[in-house]
Amino acid sequence: MTTLQQLNNFELDKVHRKINEEYNKFKAMGIQFNMARGKPAPEQLALAEQLLNLPGSGNYMASDGADCRNYGGERGLPEARELMSALVGAPPENTLVEGNSSLALMHDYLVFSLLRGNSDSLLPWSQEEKIRFLCPVPGYDYHFNMTEEYGIEMCPVSLDADGPDMDQVEELVAEDSSIKGMWCVPKYSNPTGTIYSDSVIKRLASMTTAAPDFRLFWDNAYAVHHLTEKRITIANILDACESAGHPNRALVFASTSKVTFPGGGIAAFASSTDNLQWFLEKIGKRSIVPDRINQLRHMALLPDEQALHALMDAHRQIIDPKFEAVHAAFDRWLTDPTVANWTRPKGGYFISLHTPKGCARRAVELAEKAGVTMTPAGAAFPYGNDPEDSHLRIAPTFLSMEEIEQAAEGIALSIRLAVSEKARTKNNLCYPITTPE
Amino acid sequence: MTTLQQLNNFELDKVHRKINEEYNKFKAMGIQFNMARGKPAPEQLALAEQLLNLPGSGNYMASDGADCRNYGGERGLPEARELMSALVGAPPENTLVEGNSSLALMHDYLVFSLLRGNSDSLLPWSQEEKIRFLCPVPGYDYHFNMTEEYGIEMCPVSLDADGPDMDQVEELVAEDSSIKGMWCVPKYSNPTGTIYSDSVIKRLASMTTAAPDFRLFWDNAYAVHHLTEKRITIANILDACESAGHPNRALVFASTSKVTFPGGGIAAFASSTDNLQWFLEKIGKRSIVPDRINQLRHMALLPDEQALHALMDAHRQIIDPKFEAVHAAFDRWLTDPTVANWTRPKGGYFISLHTPKGCARRAVELAEKAGVTMTPAGAAFPYGNDPEDSHLRIAPTFLSMEEIEQAAEGIALSIRLAVSEKARTKNNLCYPITTPE
Repeated sequence: MTTLQQLNNFELDKVHRKINEEYNKFKAMGIQFNMARGKPAPEQLALAEQLLNLPGSGNYMASDGADCRNYGGERGLPEARELMSALVGAPPENTLVEGNSSLALMHDYLVFSLLRGNSDSLLPWSQEEKIRFLCPVPGYDYHFNMTEEYGIEMCPVSLDADGPDMDQVEELVAEDSSIKGMWCVPKYSNPTGTIYSDSVIKRLASMTTAAPDFRLFWDNAYAVHHLTEKRITIANILDACESAGHPNRALVFASTSKVTFPGGGIAAFASSTDNLQWFLEKIGKRSIVPDRINQLRHMALLPDEQALHALMDAHRQIIDPKFEAVHAAFDRWLTDPTVANWTRPKGGYFISLHTPKGCARRAVELAEKAGVTMTPAGAAFPYGNDPEDSHLRIAPTFLSMEEIEQAAEGIALSIRLAVSEKARTKNNLCYPITTPE
Repeated sequence: MTTLQQLNNFELDKVHRKINEEYNKFKAMGIQFNMARGKPAPEQLALAEQLLNLPGSGNYMASDGADCRNYGGERGLPEARELMSALVGAPPENTLVEGNSSLALMHDYLVFSLLRGNSDSLLPWSQEEKIRFLCPVPGYDYHFNMTEEYGIEMCPVSLDADGPDMDQVEELVAEDSSIKGMWCVPKYSNPTGTIYSDSVIKRLASMTTAAPDFRLFWDNAYAVHHLTEKRITIANILDACESAGHPNRALVFASTSKVTFPGGGIAAFASSTDNLQWFLEKIGKRSIVPDRINQLRHMALLPDEQALHALMDAHRQIIDPKFEAVHAAFDRWLTDPTVANWTRPKGGYFISLHTPKGCARRAVELAEKAGVTMTPAGAAFPYGNDPEDSHLRIAPTFLSMEEIEQAAEGIALSIRLAVSEKARTKNNLCYPITTPE
């Protein structure tokens, strides 16, 4: 195959005219789709429909006899801690079920550390001259927004096929005591689908850190969100940290936001007994009791891990074909490796795509003009700044099959056109072609 | 009536023996009741039983057509904001419905202010050399615990019959720019039942504060929690602040914790457009979306203000007789004004009682020994320190009628005994009497 980069000016111009024509045809359809966020589709939400009637009249007792309608039980229900322990990889006694948002639990751990210091800190983090967090990139924009909000300097590190570049990470944390934390989405990473290898996890657990109060913010958001029949498991970070003599290092978070209902779900935090004790003491000042009725509701829907996996299988059957539809459109238009490279994730909610340098923002702009709202280019980088302007995040789940087939076509054409525009500029093809206004 | 203070040693001794005998009889019954917290009773929780089946299959749409099962709508449902606006006294557009805990909303406003400063701050509060909060006493222990947690110095001010001592308050805030906030439970105050007068509210709204970013944390926890048929209303603090040219001063909080289920309810925050915008921008970094299904659930149970008041009437009919049972026991044993003075609140969850100096801790200890766990003495004061050791908080709601009648008797006897012990010490009656071990 001749790649775009190998074309002469005449050929490039011909290709460009053709793709421009296809793009304009697509644009003329006047569709209007929003793919900015990784949202479950209505048919996925319908899988948890029963929650709308649960726990049911008279069902307000936890397995330990507690009345979940009243104050009490700040660790969450024993049975909910048991269920969620499967997502966080900790025994129930080291699992806390609290609130509806794992992001909020990360936030609260962070602000408590800023204002008070964590259990290994010499000073509250906000009283240190400077603090920094390692950010594997591309990563999750909400992690980065929160970090930026509190003036924590973000240090991007490369995310390789098996996880963060550990040579880079080990060197940074060993030398720089201002590095207090690191964001990790260890499985089916947002947005790259990366699965951290056992070796990476072991190195993260055992590396020497200059800061005694360094923490891994281990966001296991996609623990059970498989896109293949194989339920991939990764090494247990809490066990690895414990074995390496750093029992307080890892903070593991998960939620049912993409299991049942975003916002209407339950969230969990697992860590060492010390960390948990410290955290409980702090959140006990913030609020008196979690919503335990919603935990009961979830237990009625998902009484055990088997029920959880069955529900996730049903999710997979809905969303996997949507990922395939995106791959099919990309296979049609983007197989030229000088135009695009994208991931075929085994789980999670996103496809990650790289264009040549300087094409991502333009591709998003072209897609927007053609009626497809994508995640803003750069969103997966600290400060929204992709230095290469080459990364795109695609969220296939929310749209219907028919819509995603159309949208993926539009995205593929927008990318193809952006790249060919760039190639023309590089080759100084300055005569005009009807471009979209 | 001869008061305890007027008795001679012989008479005092005789009274003491009698009360000691009554107390020991009570103690011998071997009861075991916990009255430490203001918890609703199971029959109150049953009033919201329907919530366990709501919103019901197929009901997931908000009035604006939003799918509440998915991401979106960070301000809360329009209809929930309308309902809660009745509790916070703001138009729906200035009311935010978010989470299950008003305490958590206060906490989050506080930590955002500490880490970033509020919309009128020159510096983040945590970067100021010292900051202080005014604390009307007796007050709510969770307010004080949170303030202490973040190293904010607490400045007690007297709570009079019509609200905080405004001469004291005005002088302090005018002079001291380190005073950044003030805790207020303006109606049926925890634990005194105080109702702030129009004049106090006007002075709070219009007073000159040295700190430009001073805030009233206006915890309207008992907005609709009446104990009489009269639904007492107080002046609107948001309007008063707006009129006085301090639109950002008041932060109003409320929740349904004692309307439906503690933990399983919904919470609201109302303030100026500026404050709300600032707060939304911050909480948007903490979590993505509130639990809107639980808001739908509440709207199905409480479609309008009338339904809310009907529910609160049903609560009143359950708890008012329990307050009366406490008054009856206290009337039997404590009418001597040199022994105790207590409140007869028109709403809220507590009775507040003052003993002579130095008797409160002993009364709680005696009650505990007789099987009745009370709120720890001093809990209603900053740092748990009641300088007079004279204040007790009584929480009549949780126990059944039969239990509260017994418990109130035990508390009355414990108080009576503690006071008479103290009087004997003062009078140097050193010969022993069989005292409880």
